[in-house]
Amino acid sequence: MTDSAYQFADRTKWMKASIIREILKVSSQPNVISFAGGLPSADTFPIPEVKAALDETLATDGARSLQYFVTEGHPGLKGYLCDWLAKTQNIICSPEEMILTNGSQQALDLIGKIFINPGDSILVEDPTYLGAIQSFNPYQPKYITVSLQDDGMDEAQFAKALATNPVRMIYTVPTFQNPSGITTSLRKRETILELAARRNIPVIEDDPYSRLRFRGKEMPSLFSLSKRGGVILLGTFSKILSPGIRLGYLIADKNVIQQIVYAKQATDLQTNTLVQYAVYHYCRQGNLEKHIPLIIRNYASKATVMTEAMRELFPKEVQFVEPEGGMFVWCRLPAPMRAAELFKLAIAKNVAFVEGSVFHANGGGENTLRLNFTNSSPDDIRIGIARLAEAIRALSGK
Amino acid sequence: MTDSAYQFADRTKWMKASIIREILKVSSQPNVISFAGGLPSADTFPIPEVKAALDETLATDGARSLQYFVTEGHPGLKGYLCDWLAKTQNIICSPEEMILTNGSQQALDLIGKIFINPGDSILVEDPTYLGAIQSFNPYQPKYITVSLQDDGMDEAQFAKALATNPVRMIYTVPTFQNPSGITTSLRKRETILELAARRNIPVIEDDPYSRLRFRGKEMPSLFSLSKRGGVILLGTFSKILSPGIRLGYLIADKNVIQQIVYAKQATDLQTNTLVQYAVYHYCRQGNLEKHIPLIIRNYASKATVMTEAMRELFPKEVQFVEPEGGMFVWCRLPAPMRAAELFKLAIAKNVAFVEGSVFHANGGGENTLRLNFTNSSPDDIRIGIARLAEAIRALSGK
Repeated sequence: MTDSAYQFADRTKWMKASIIREILKVSSQPNVISFAGGLPSADTFPIPEVKAALDETLATDGARSLQYFVTEGHPGLKGYLCDWLAKTQNIICSPEEMILTNGSQQALDLIGKIFINPGDSILVEDPTYLGAIQSFNPYQPKYITVSLQDDGMDEAQFAKALATNPVRMIYTVPTFQNPSGITTSLRKRETILELAARRNIPVIEDDPYSRLRFRGKEMPSLFSLSKRGGVILLGTFSKILSPGIRLGYLIADKNVIQQIVYAKQATDLQTNTLVQYAVYHYCRQGNLEKHIPLIIRNYASKATVMTEAMRELFPKEVQFVEPEGGMFVWCRLPAPMRAAELFKLAIAKNVAFVEGSVFHANGGGENTLRLNFTNSSPDDIRIGIARLAEAIRALSGK
Repeated sequence: MTDSAYQFADRTKWMKASIIREILKVSSQPNVISFAGGLPSADTFPIPEVKAALDETLATDGARSLQYFVTEGHPGLKGYLCDWLAKTQNIICSPEEMILTNGSQQALDLIGKIFINPGDSILVEDPTYLGAIQSFNPYQPKYITVSLQDDGMDEAQFAKALATNPVRMIYTVPTFQNPSGITTSLRKRETILELAARRNIPVIEDDPYSRLRFRGKEMPSLFSLSKRGGVILLGTFSKILSPGIRLGYLIADKNVIQQIVYAKQATDLQTNTLVQYAVYHYCRQGNLEKHIPLIIRNYASKATVMTEAMRELFPKEVQFVEPEGGMFVWCRLPAPMRAAELFKLAIAKNVAFVEGSVFHANGGGENTLRLNFTNSSPDDIRIGIARLAEAIRALSGK
């Protein structure tokens, strides 16, 4: 086929390949130990239970599970999720306040679609989740960034950002943030809710990781802390069951849900019926609650292996945040060192990571890096951290 | 939860509930015989073969099928599709010129995302597929409509539309069109390609139905007729396997595919991994080619039952297009009669259809209606057509 030379829409200038997906191509070479991705550990996937759930689906709901379905999602699965969220996280909502999505990434796209006019200001953490920037970019927002401290966004910066910009929405990953692993403190959660409510600004709470806590005390979600609504909560099965099944949920008041339903009809009609039925049967059989502790055990031991090796082998000037959950360790190199240069040395030694700068919506973070600990074996984690320590020493010796 | 009063993005004014999805709610009541939807017949779903494909997937690719996956889609399944398209339809493309999507609806959304700036002119048939209008609406195009005649778009109108408007893309369903069932003639296909190529305008060929031909001669796709490229072809498993699995494909030159990949990463990262593996195994085992003839047989007999009943029972002034394939019969009432009024009388007699006016991007078609024959039993088709005939006589007697 001859290559075309069409004029594309203006918004395509804001749409680029995911840098992480590009890094994954480099780091997927056989000898490379990769801390770059954000992949769950494949050895946690509950294959026999998924098979049993699919078998039950085809035996009891065969034709229904292959037919078109309501845009809002499987009522029974939404009912299960409402009960589970109430019981485990004090999140109180009804099935009518929930829609099932193709993973959280689609929820982010739909939120962009219903909230963002070109040029609108949206407030994000600095650093923030790269996938969110990618989702929002086609809607051409202006990013207002607020620095993340070790206990969440800088409060003074946050207040000033709201006071000086017509902010249309606030996007935050308050628990075990990607990329930083940081959890926002209770006090800062209350500040965010208070200041957002005063200006009637919706807060998008993206929560893929809070169920993966292996240390410390449960932190209430923004959604459960909010007395007056105003929080749109995103959750996903990607990190507690499987990312390949592409299933997430969005919780919001009915006005927002209605707009999201219209947007989703336009985008893909509905989420996969077969998978919704299968996950419904999987959950109904009690598998989810049995499975999550197994993932936590797996990740807790890997996180410990990684941070112990880092403490032992990294130069003391390299700072990192000890994770209490989630999938990532965030590192700060001494200021003159640049993660981009470190990456070249590291990849030559067959170890990969993601430079922190890609997570900054408006630039910055050149001395930071994100390390994923879930998708390597404990042995590989030790070897990879040793290689990375050598690369850091080589760079600082330059 | 208290209902919010947020300001939504301007594009939401273009996003409304699908009228068809609303009609489906009315028509899903137990006593209603519904010709309203566009649902495949559930008794054609190959449940044992889907189960076998899922079993093989979990046995051989268990962990891989539950993990994150490439945005472009399963290489093996794309390879199968390339071979099948070449063999059955003389459509020649490589896997690099194909991306797998969440059904064709997502492909339409992604096309809107990469091609349409607010206010851009896009050319559509009149009537056209409602789901396409819904997909494109959030990108705020201006619709240039060209009347459909019984052998495709009016050529003079088409030529004039291109000459007098800066058309950014042409959207057509050339074979067994939804809603009209009309198939564009070979001569008109060549005219479309010729005039579009002269102005370097991409032609979006949406082809969900061409495999469902039960009469007449195979018509070459625009894609296979085009010598110089310029056609973006959309296909789907929805009508030849199952719509609930949400799996479609888009074929285009590599420049377009690259933009679509960026847009899809931003929209939902990737299509369901598990389903892609399962459909790969399903196809590889030779099931697709065995299955399609069974669907055709089922639909051919239902179409015959419907049109025979219409010829027998409808007043002669009601015109309709005898379908050679697809899922719909298109009806024109004598001009003073309005399908909206007929709908009220019909639903009172427990039979439903979709008014043709909803398929007109810029209005019109008030005397037309679309009847689906795939999702009712032959007995129900006869009873439903008898009821509808009574409703037509009641309306014309007014």
